[in-house]
Amino acid sequence: MAPTYKLTYFDITALGEPIRFLLSYGGMEFEDNRIQKESWPTLRPSTPFGQMPILEHNGKVAYQSAAICRYLAKQVKLVGKNEWEDLEIDATVDTITDLRLKIGPYYYEQDEKIKEVKAGPIFNEIIPFYMEKLDAQVKNNNGYFVNGRLTWADLFFVAMVDYLCFMANKDIIANSPNLQILKENVLKVPSIKAWIEKRPKCEY
Amino acid sequence: MAPTYKLTYFDITALGEPIRFLLSYGGMEFEDNRIQKESWPTLRPSTPFGQMPILEHNGKVAYQSAAICRYLAKQVKLVGKNEWEDLEIDATVDTITDLRLKIGPYYYEQDEKIKEVKAGPIFNEIIPFYMEKLDAQVKNNNGYFVNGRLTWADLFFVAMVDYLCFMANKDIIANSPNLQILKENVLKVPSIKAWIEKRPKCEY
Repeated sequence: MAPTYKLTYFDITALGEPIRFLLSYGGMEFEDNRIQKESWPTLRPSTPFGQMPILEHNGKVAYQSAAICRYLAKQVKLVGKNEWEDLEIDATVDTITDLRLKIGPYYYEQDEKIKEVKAGPIFNEIIPFYMEKLDAQVKNNNGYFVNGRLTWADLFFVAMVDYLCFMANKDIIANSPNLQILKENVLKVPSIKAWIEKRPKCEY
Repeated sequence: MAPTYKLTYFDITALGEPIRFLLSYGGMEFEDNRIQKESWPTLRPSTPFGQMPILEHNGKVAYQSAAICRYLAKQVKLVGKNEWEDLEIDATVDTITDLRLKIGPYYYEQDEKIKEVKAGPIFNEIIPFYMEKLDAQVKNNNGYFVNGRLTWADLFFVAMVDYLCFMANKDIIANSPNLQILKENVLKVPSIKAWIEKRPKCEY
């Protein structure tokens, strides 16, 4: 049977990887359509808002990675047990995105002098601030982000953290023992472990 | 009876207003706790991630405005009719946030010369691109963002659009007839109309 999901994204982890984790977790076959950078300008006008990843399913096209993840999390039962838990999961996911968006301008900065100026607040304030709070959250929730149990917030973070480390050029969880435990907890899930082993090797 | 929801935010619309719209739509009494800028540094360390708005309910504290809105939308029945519709709503909301985050660096730029450079792509590319696509989406959905029916994506946009216009210093929906219809559709909802009439007047 042909896969019912087709994911289109660059040949990197980043925003596509949480979606690949969730599809893998649910044992859902998917077409992992990886676009080379040269092909993107041609493809771009056909996407809903000029961005990837996009997920095709039943002839429809979805966009926005966190929204796609939330949808898939419902399919694979990695959501909260009630609406307040879902709120806590959603807030955590958006906070991880906030952190990514704060590291981004440092990573993308081309001017070495400006990059050095930006490094100060990124490494002395922003990353330590987020890591301390996220680590405490996992400590208070028995090795997971929300209510002591695996949810899609955990997969979202672990799928994304290598990209955050790549952008920061630093192991951002080196001083976060509970986030390290979270990472282990997610990576030892058999379906995730199998995905990591079989996924294409890419730069980041 | 004391209100069961307490919203804490600055004395502006911006990220707080979609939450106020949703609480008002649901006829839920809430404490509209408005913080003056001078008080924020003192309050900040007590918030979950150093950001507002926060919503307190039943002794618990929620953060992240879109996550709070999604939670409230479930309470007031402004969500989709199925999980794919919820995905479309979520994608729309995150796209509105993308637009806000792209206007932000222009608005916050202090250097007049750099601001002028940033104005080019903002006004010639980014805003027209998003407005054209969002307008077409509403045109294709009978005056609403998703499936021809009022959802929290509509309230989110209309509550936020004045702030986007303020940041851009321009009526960004001036050339978007369908987004204008959407705005009218939302503002004529009696509970929203009543909220607009009674809400505190603030700079933006």
